[in-house]
Amino acid sequence: MLSKINANQTIEKHLYKDELKPLQEKLAALQQRVRKADLPVLIVYEGWGASGKGTNIGKLVNPMDPRYFDVLTMSRVTEEMRLRPFLWGYWCRIPGKGQITIIDKSWHRVIMPGERENWRLKQAELDCFYQDVNAFERQLAQDGTLIIKLFLHISQDEQSRRFKALEDDPSTAWRIKPHDRAQNKHYNEYLKQYENMLQKTTTQHNPWHIIEADDKRYSALKTCRIITEAIEARLNEMEETKQAEPAIVLPNGNYPHILANTTTDRNIENAEYKEELDFLQARMNRLGHKMYAKRRPAVIVYEGWDAAGKGGNIKRLVAELDPRCYAVVPIGPPTPHELGRHYLWRFIRRMPKDGHFTIFDRSWYGRVLIERVENLTPVPVWQRAYDEINEMEQHLANHGVILLKFWLHIDKDEQLKRFNARQSDPAKQHKITDADWINRSNWEAYETATDEMFAKTDKPHAPWVVVESNNKKFARIKVLQTVTDALDDALR
Amino acid sequence: MLSKINANQTIEKHLYKDELKPLQEKLAALQQRVRKADLPVLIVYEGWGASGKGTNIGKLVNPMDPRYFDVLTMSRVTEEMRLRPFLWGYWCRIPGKGQITIIDKSWHRVIMPGERENWRLKQAELDCFYQDVNAFERQLAQDGTLIIKLFLHISQDEQSRRFKALEDDPSTAWRIKPHDRAQNKHYNEYLKQYENMLQKTTTQHNPWHIIEADDKRYSALKTCRIITEAIEARLNEMEETKQAEPAIVLPNGNYPHILANTTTDRNIENAEYKEELDFLQARMNRLGHKMYAKRRPAVIVYEGWDAAGKGGNIKRLVAELDPRCYAVVPIGPPTPHELGRHYLWRFIRRMPKDGHFTIFDRSWYGRVLIERVENLTPVPVWQRAYDEINEMEQHLANHGVILLKFWLHIDKDEQLKRFNARQSDPAKQHKITDADWINRSNWEAYETATDEMFAKTDKPHAPWVVVESNNKKFARIKVLQTVTDALDDALR
Repeated sequence: MLSKINANQTIEKHLYKDELKPLQEKLAALQQRVRKADLPVLIVYEGWGASGKGTNIGKLVNPMDPRYFDVLTMSRVTEEMRLRPFLWGYWCRIPGKGQITIIDKSWHRVIMPGERENWRLKQAELDCFYQDVNAFERQLAQDGTLIIKLFLHISQDEQSRRFKALEDDPSTAWRIKPHDRAQNKHYNEYLKQYENMLQKTTTQHNPWHIIEADDKRYSALKTCRIITEAIEARLNEMEETKQAEPAIVLPNGNYPHILANTTTDRNIENAEYKEELDFLQARMNRLGHKMYAKRRPAVIVYEGWDAAGKGGNIKRLVAELDPRCYAVVPIGPPTPHELGRHYLWRFIRRMPKDGHFTIFDRSWYGRVLIERVENLTPVPVWQRAYDEINEMEQHLANHGVILLKFWLHIDKDEQLKRFNARQSDPAKQHKITDADWINRSNWEAYETATDEMFAKTDKPHAPWVVVESNNKKFARIKVLQTVTDALDDALR
Repeated sequence: MLSKINANQTIEKHLYKDELKPLQEKLAALQQRVRKADLPVLIVYEGWGASGKGTNIGKLVNPMDPRYFDVLTMSRVTEEMRLRPFLWGYWCRIPGKGQITIIDKSWHRVIMPGERENWRLKQAELDCFYQDVNAFERQLAQDGTLIIKLFLHISQDEQSRRFKALEDDPSTAWRIKPHDRAQNKHYNEYLKQYENMLQKTTTQHNPWHIIEADDKRYSALKTCRIITEAIEARLNEMEETKQAEPAIVLPNGNYPHILANTTTDRNIENAEYKEELDFLQARMNRLGHKMYAKRRPAVIVYEGWDAAGKGGNIKRLVAELDPRCYAVVPIGPPTPHELGRHYLWRFIRRMPKDGHFTIFDRSWYGRVLIERVENLTPVPVWQRAYDEINEMEQHLANHGVILLKFWLHIDKDEQLKRFNARQSDPAKQHKITDADWINRSNWEAYETATDEMFAKTDKPHAPWVVVESNNKKFARIKVLQTVTDALDDALR
């Protein structure tokens, strides 16, 4: 499509002025409405070198209150980003409720030639990128973020003229980099790449807007018009649907009863436990060093019944790891700040750097467990979460993250015994709360939720492992064994 | 002192075991008390290459619950850090209430040879570093953070042996870098540098603990002992002083009456305003590019009476700046998350990268203005803030930040006129709240606070400029003129 678009559209100066002014006034008013409506807006700029993105953004934000928008220049990939899956840096910066965020050079960059080398680990094939990008945008859109994607298009001649003008002025000559010259020289090659990118990432929710940008006035005007219309349409839509129509609720499937059919009792002798523990922790230590040397990251998720022994299990898992290479993240209820963003945001932020481990004590699966069982989240929203979770985990795996998920499994009698023991021991009373008793009363609902979760999110690159945990020692050995085996495999 | 310490202290294996076990148990219990007491703990590891920091940290954290401490490995300076004053990266990572943060390689690094080149801008002289470091540590300590600084000391022979052992093992050989070998070869040179660093940063609040580390058991034991004792002593102290003794309140000084003696009325003709505005905004645009090219950062602070016109003034200041190179940060009441840390934390986090502008709409001066006037903060705490602010601004200036602070000044009649106008215009009603009327009723108290603030924080590298603002147009021109002059000067 791009090659068919004539970048050279012009507008008379007086017509431009006549039209721009009211658009800008409208935009200033819309900015206030965006804040009141708690609408997150993400405006994405891509385009040719010297296509005038800076000037265009300048015209766009000119009427707005500068306290309430952010412009992120992401033309350089920082080391923090390089050491993580490529969407990580963008996930961390998504706008909160009522915020307008403008990104100059977005996640689409990774699709362009020469860009993928920015990330340290070998990334998966190009098609995975498109899948990851489209899933990311769809997830934000479904969560209520308005995404407006703009591509600034200029012709080869115009680009060449602009580079020359910049070069001729000593105060701007430094802005032209070798890759800019390459782009102009191999314009048609790049055109194909851009076209491909635009086609593959044009989706129903999140289409691209091509801005003909040879003429800066035309470009500014069209951008303002598109953004004003998009924001206004969304705000009106939000007001009209304040009484939300009933969302489609999927029927409850019949999923295999995993938990009810899994034993909780597996035993291990004390002497064997000690020997195994020493052996496996030493193995874990060696593998930790190897992970760091090879810059492979790992994510380990703990879920399970209350009082199943997650804390003690995690402690044994990391005991011999170099403490500089892992972090344990306990997950509680989200803070107001976290509630202002897509629910995956707070987890993605904590993902490990290459070469490091992150262990989650409870996780993003809360959405399809406690949030489902206790009706904290509308049905269609948690039903959507299986896909979102799978897409996120796929994105991690594409980057080379080793991902394991454990369900620590005890039976109801064992749980009752442990609750009572905690309540009668003053040193452990802080570990038992009303919430634990409430969860216990919902045992069967949790079983149903867990069965569906296993059925929908057990994947080769992100398997679920049920750990028989009535005997805590057995559980610790099983986790250590599973993790060290998986790391060993992955590093081979 | 370091050169007089024999690094080779040993302990028998059985004595070590006998003593370590109870210390570790104590530490596990103390960790829980730290959480309950909301005590932030910052443990700093420095020391020779191969002095065993990793192993030592491992022993230390072994008994702790891994969910409630963080280990930060900061042996590499990231680009995010390189583009800002050297304390910035550490400020961003200070522990919150009840958190234990362990840092492997801290801010002291900048003092060592070859390290200062990590930061892009020319830093000030070495003595400024010591001042900045000591001020940072004192500020955290006064705010209630327990800082424990450890230096792991090994002899030249032991270091040489350890490097050899690492090199001989193919799985660890990669860990030895050229600068490690240089350190061993020029051991005595480094010794002097370390000694100097230790002496200059040993302060009353925050002394160093030297750990003799030739023997790893001895090193682990001494570390655990020091940390256990320090945490326990602090917790006991906190419990004893729950009824805080009356803090020393300084007498109110008699400061020159700046505001009461400054006119608010300065006028400008409409035609002149337009001409000046165009000229100065174009100048600002050129200077913005120059700032970026030369990688100089700037911080601009707006304070002033309510309804003095800060928002409109900021808008004119940034109108022609490239929106990718500035951020405007509105400051409201702190969030609970922000209240959990030193009050400067939330401002320092937002400081600009080299080459960028940050404009604060209200700022850290809130502590000595609204927090003082409305008794939101105890007297000794806001009295301490003048020094803290001066030290922070000095640290910015040492890095090369251009810093300007504006007080937008209107008189009481003008304010009343504007309040009434806002209240009668539906489009502006959101801009006036009860808080504005309360502030107005405290006008004289604000005058007193402002006079003291000017007297104590007006510095050559961070000047206050009072802007006569009854006429908004005059005020905008004055700010633009002042800022562009200052940038021009600094870039010359």
